[in-house]
Amino acid sequence: MSARISDSAMYAHLWGTPEVREVFDESARVQGWLDVLVALARAQAASGLIPLSSAEAIAEAAKVDRLDLDQVGVATRETGHSTLGLIRELQPLLPESAREHLYFKTTVQDVTDTWTALAVRTVGGIVWRDLRAIEARLLELSAQHRDTLMCGRTHGQPGAPITFGWKVASWADEVRRHLDRLREGSDRWLTVQLGGGLGTLVDAGPSALEVRARFAAELGLNEPRISWLSSRDRPAEFGHLLAMICGTLARIGGEVYELQRPEIGELAEPRPAGVVGSITMHHKRNPEGSEHLDTLARLARSSSGVLSESVVSQHERDGRAWKAEWVALPEVCLLTGSALSLTRRLVDGLEIDEDRMTANLRTHLGQTQNPADPGAAPLMVDRVLRHARAARAQESEQWP
Amino acid sequence: MSARISDSAMYAHLWGTPEVREVFDESARVQGWLDVLVALARAQAASGLIPLSSAEAIAEAAKVDRLDLDQVGVATRETGHSTLGLIRELQPLLPESAREHLYFKTTVQDVTDTWTALAVRTVGGIVWRDLRAIEARLLELSAQHRDTLMCGRTHGQPGAPITFGWKVASWADEVRRHLDRLREGSDRWLTVQLGGGLGTLVDAGPSALEVRARFAAELGLNEPRISWLSSRDRPAEFGHLLAMICGTLARIGGEVYELQRPEIGELAEPRPAGVVGSITMHHKRNPEGSEHLDTLARLARSSSGVLSESVVSQHERDGRAWKAEWVALPEVCLLTGSALSLTRRLVDGLEIDEDRMTANLRTHLGQTQNPADPGAAPLMVDRVLRHARAARAQESEQWP
Amino acid sequence: MSARISDSAMYAHLWGTPEVREVFDESARVQGWLDVLVALARAQAASGLIPLSSAEAIAEAAKVDRLDLDQVGVATRETGHSTLGLIRELQPLLPESAREHLYFKTTVQDVTDTWTALAVRTVGGIVWRDLRAIEARLLELSAQHRDTLMCGRTHGQPGAPITFGWKVASWADEVRRHLDRLREGSDRWLTVQLGGGLGTLVDAGPSALEVRARFAAELGLNEPRISWLSSRDRPAEFGHLLAMICGTLARIGGEVYELQRPEIGELAEPRPAGVVGSITMHHKRNPEGSEHLDTLARLARSSSGVLSESVVSQHERDGRAWKAEWVALPEVCLLTGSALSLTRRLVDGLEIDEDRMTANLRTHLGQTQNPADPGAAPLMVDRVLRHARAARAQESEQWP
Amino acid sequence: MSARISDSAMYAHLWGTPEVREVFDESARVQGWLDVLVALARAQAASGLIPLSSAEAIAEAAKVDRLDLDQVGVATRETGHSTLGLIRELQPLLPESAREHLYFKTTVQDVTDTWTALAVRTVGGIVWRDLRAIEARLLELSAQHRDTLMCGRTHGQPGAPITFGWKVASWADEVRRHLDRLREGSDRWLTVQLGGGLGTLVDAGPSALEVRARFAAELGLNEPRISWLSSRDRPAEFGHLLAMICGTLARIGGEVYELQRPEIGELAEPRPAGVVGSITMHHKRNPEGSEHLDTLARLARSSSGVLSESVVSQHERDGRAWKAEWVALPEVCLLTGSALSLTRRLVDGLEIDEDRMTANLRTHLGQTQNPADPGAAPLMVDRVLRHARAARAQESEQWP
Repeated sequence: MSARISDSAMYAHLWGTPEVREVFDESARVQGWLDVLVALARAQAASGLIPLSSAEAIAEAAKVDRLDLDQVGVATRETGHSTLGLIRELQPLLPESAREHLYFKTTVQDVTDTWTALAVRTVGGIVWRDLRAIEARLLELSAQHRDTLMCGRTHGQPGAPITFGWKVASWADEVRRHLDRLREGSDRWLTVQLGGGLGTLVDAGPSALEVRARFAAELGLNEPRISWLSSRDRPAEFGHLLAMICGTLARIGGEVYELQRPEIGELAEPRPAGVVGSITMHHKRNPEGSEHLDTLARLARSSSGVLSESVVSQHERDGRAWKAEWVALPEVCLLTGSALSLTRRLVDGLEIDEDRMTANLRTHLGQTQNPADPGAAPLMVDRVLRHARAARAQESEQWP
Repeated sequence: MSARISDSAMYAHLWGTPEVREVFDESARVQGWLDVLVALARAQAASGLIPLSSAEAIAEAAKVDRLDLDQVGVATRETGHSTLGLIRELQPLLPESAREHLYFKTTVQDVTDTWTALAVRTVGGIVWRDLRAIEARLLELSAQHRDTLMCGRTHGQPGAPITFGWKVASWADEVRRHLDRLREGSDRWLTVQLGGGLGTLVDAGPSALEVRARFAAELGLNEPRISWLSSRDRPAEFGHLLAMICGTLARIGGEVYELQRPEIGELAEPRPAGVVGSITMHHKRNPEGSEHLDTLARLARSSSGVLSESVVSQHERDGRAWKAEWVALPEVCLLTGSALSLTRRLVDGLEIDEDRMTANLRTHLGQTQNPADPGAAPLMVDRVLRHARAARAQESEQWP
Repeated sequence: MSARISDSAMYAHLWGTPEVREVFDESARVQGWLDVLVALARAQAASGLIPLSSAEAIAEAAKVDRLDLDQVGVATRETGHSTLGLIRELQPLLPESAREHLYFKTTVQDVTDTWTALAVRTVGGIVWRDLRAIEARLLELSAQHRDTLMCGRTHGQPGAPITFGWKVASWADEVRRHLDRLREGSDRWLTVQLGGGLGTLVDAGPSALEVRARFAAELGLNEPRISWLSSRDRPAEFGHLLAMICGTLARIGGEVYELQRPEIGELAEPRPAGVVGSITMHHKRNPEGSEHLDTLARLARSSSGVLSESVVSQHERDGRAWKAEWVALPEVCLLTGSALSLTRRLVDGLEIDEDRMTANLRTHLGQTQNPADPGAAPLMVDRVLRHARAARAQESEQWP
Repeated sequence: MSARISDSAMYAHLWGTPEVREVFDESARVQGWLDVLVALARAQAASGLIPLSSAEAIAEAAKVDRLDLDQVGVATRETGHSTLGLIRELQPLLPESAREHLYFKTTVQDVTDTWTALAVRTVGGIVWRDLRAIEARLLELSAQHRDTLMCGRTHGQPGAPITFGWKVASWADEVRRHLDRLREGSDRWLTVQLGGGLGTLVDAGPSALEVRARFAAELGLNEPRISWLSSRDRPAEFGHLLAMICGTLARIGGEVYELQRPEIGELAEPRPAGVVGSITMHHKRNPEGSEHLDTLARLARSSSGVLSESVVSQHERDGRAWKAEWVALPEVCLLTGSALSLTRRLVDGLEIDEDRMTANLRTHLGQTQNPADPGAAPLMVDRVLRHARAARAQESEQWP
């Protein structure tokens, strides 16, 4: 039963892409948690804390498709514990001797925070890829329209001329800054959590930190200097970056939305075959995608705010702050995935009406001011292009 | 596939009750939309706009279980239109002659806003019922502990004595104000939307407002004076009230959370049989429910903020604002349902340790200040009780 | 030294009106606090708690212009206490015998919450007056343009025709709902706080509640049933209503902002003599006022969110929540005052270009669809007018 | 007249430090704007756009103390233009020939955005300095209490032992991440704006970008690749970082607030001589500073949210978004300054009661579990210390 419209059969596509949904889908999430437990068992076995045979048995058994998730749900509700239901369903799949080595010296938040780091890795990779694709298209448009004159507008009013390429270059440059931020933050975000109940790795023996290092290595994540159970700046920073990215995409969308007004008519978002704008008004062509980018940005900002609030956590674990992240972090990731995908389609198929641009320029600036002077706009375009191309040439297509 | 943890098999119970989930569940929502279309057809038939036979055929066909929602989803994605997929699936179920009378002279937002009003009616009823049940229990506790002395605390520090009943009466009085607000707002919220594409009821003939009145009567909702497609104070007000209610419940939860610290030990939330606090620390008894009330309040505030933003809508319809409501309004309802349910269990089974209250009072206020004087606290309790009882005696158990 | 641009000599006018600023101005605030202390002393004297001569001496001395506020500031910082600096400056102005009767059996929050209720009374009165003035003008415009055809617009795109009066009537109806809310909430907001340190009126003797009743009567405010030191739904509700009102005004402003685009040209905000739109582009006429309404609404929403967070308060006083209100509640009042004043000017001088409305309608809807049919729009205007006029006829020009 | 309590004579110290207030004080701000105009004139003179003598005359005249700010305010209100009042007051101080070269080919936002970058440089420097001072003290405490055993607490309940040094190291590590973020973002934030009305540097001649480069060099700021009038990720990122920093400081404050409860008694905030906790309850010692950190964090988060909303800007200038920054960015800076200053005092004078830590550990964990085992906590402390010390040794005491 799906009570969230964002998970519905009819409308889920508006609030997440299949690709990001796959990261947070329940069975993927549970599999992710199991993978974390497997990595932990391997690290513990390598350090001699548990028998190697137990680690192998755990790796063998920890497959989400061997579990009945509804039954896990029942046990979760019965115990009122976040992972005990899962463990109780999983243990019977293990040989007797390995059962006590499942979920050994660890705690819920070790599993969920580490899994979140894995999810952030995938989502961050998607964001990196899509932002770069958007940037590539924007650079192309910007170069192509470096000298395409149009009205600049301030306070909603046509003013002196700009070029369309210059407008687009401002978007591209903003996207590039987000790419920089993604790169800068990755080391902070892609970090395991391992500490057990209080975060101290108590009872984990003298090799405790060695286990943690192996655990991180198993997963290809970083080791923290210290447990961060109630130190929540990492998700707050990542979530806010995604919300800013959604803001940038909504800025692009908003520009199309406004310039697609027939009274202006300079831009139009692409209209895939088969799409119906309005049943009652057939002639209308609504900028639905552009508009939706704003909706997504509002929701992303709202969820990001929840993450920022969680920075103020109490003691060694604060369920109030942390459980709010369970909802808010995937939410902002899903919304961002949708916004990126929408924007890619938007900029790829963007219709640009140069004639209207010229006509509007004539109308609003008057005959006397022509030929219109875009000032240093084309030169600024060149700078944006040069910088972005150089950065792109040096960086990986993968993140991090 | 459920990508929201709030819709997951394992954790959905934390973020919504079955009862509220049933309101927003996809099939219930679609049935609700169909019910709205049926009411519209009936109203139109009664006014002679469409044949009665068409209205009857629509009423006959408009059953969610006759539709393949996944197929509706496919058609929704293909058309890029919010309801056209649904209509296209439904039309073949109608006799040829009735097909054009389905979704006649109406628009998406007529259907969704009216359905939302129906959902608000159900959710508001649940909130009313649960708040009154919580109030009843709080009044009971308040009367019972009218004179139970304990430390008052300001800035986290024990100060002069209060009574436990007085503390509880402050909660009860706040709950009563929320009940007042629920009552005052109902006429505003339980209002249909009917106007067609622009909201003007164009082409609906001279009986247009008569149809709207019949439509409202069919559904037991109010008629607006004017279409409110881009006038969104109603959802903003309702959502904020729910968020405030969640805040009040989180205040109660927070008090239990803090006073359950073993160092204080004056209160404890009930612990259902079978519940496991901590796997690693067996002796611990975590105030998970109380804590969760704070999480729910954070998320509800966040979604409520989205609704407030929607008040600033543009022109005659603004998809940016309105689509954000699609997510945010159900969300705040679901979270509130969960918070109410949790609080009912919390206050019903609340453990009160009078001995610790007395002991703490002695420790912190010292021997010399005893007997402790609670001032006019008991008299204030009496006032709260008197007012609430009188109000309860006069009001309906149902809302609105 | 003014570090807030909102308090600056150059720009304060953008972020508050003189009238609302006068409510929150430091000397007015301190005088308000002193008035509260005088009312308390009178109530205590009437109940025999302190000598009448002391109450008279306090009333005589409690004049803000007899205090050196900078010196009060020094003493406030030295003691680290919110009101002790004030008391220490005031006591020397009293005869020896009356000194102990100043600030007798009370606490900071009694004074500040009660003063806030007084401020809310004044601000609410201004809001009531201005909203009614705006409504009056909107009704006038609505009646006048009941049949003035123009393009309706959805998703930013011109659609079927509406009338300008109908658009305005939707604003008017929304304003009317805010007036309803203002009326409904007044009893909750205009309530004194009196309870001393913990809120229990300890040591206030058997006449404690009698003193509180007299105190409330002195100030013309309501008596609460129970102290509300950490029960903060009242400010949260009031603040959110103001934020919604700002949202409504921003909706009106946004409409002017968009329809003032020269490409559309249907509306224009008035331009007072002497105002310069742009130094660099002399021909431009920026919708600065309309635009600013959106800025004000953003800031008001933001401050209102702080108030909602304060509902989750701890124990018998929670400085974290309450001190945040010190900043956020005046802020939202100041911003709302500014938004109301701006909107009054906007709607009073609004320029309406019927020719452009007609021309745009022709352009976008085409010759074939004319004569344009506004459906039941004019009839809806009539309903709005009838309801509002009836309500206005029955209600007071004053609030509450 | 100060209508904001945050600017009041009595309470301004709670909402900003003298040092940060000095940055945003009206006369400092105006001087900053004048400095920007001087730098612009110099750059324009160097490129031959205006005579050198004009640049010199402007530098000579552009002194805030030669202006009557109240008169500037009057002219600002009369013109309804943000800087025209200032220019009109300043021009008479210039020789006739230089007057047209003041504010030459520039626009309001060039001046204010560039000044904001200057302000951010000062504020960022203060934040850097204070965070490093806090870090230094935390490292000291952490080393000193590396092995001081105490109860860890999760969900508000005492659990297994930790060490106090480990708790503090978690704070220190979070502070270090903020220092990293400050370093990483500086190049983005410390960037001039120069583009004239639309941002294109129209009419600035072939040397337009050369002028911009000189302008940036004059001020020691970076040159952007392209104007960023409506590209507002920079302030959004900086503001959010400050809000996160406030969150971290509120986390530290919250810990003291809770552990200072006499029932726990493990920590206490310092109490400066002369400070009075409560007039009515003399024995009380309220954690006022710790508590206030939470208030500051709430307000900072709220203002930061406004900045994030501004990312969605329209066209080439969007006053709605930008004017909101005028209020919100200084606000978050002022609040952060206050939070840093409070935290410095808090951690410098923090009282640590090791006996209570031991006693609580005994009480809650029981005799049988002793000697208590802090696991790898001390080793994690070592890692935090090692990393932070190495970073400190390599970095400048100044920012950026």
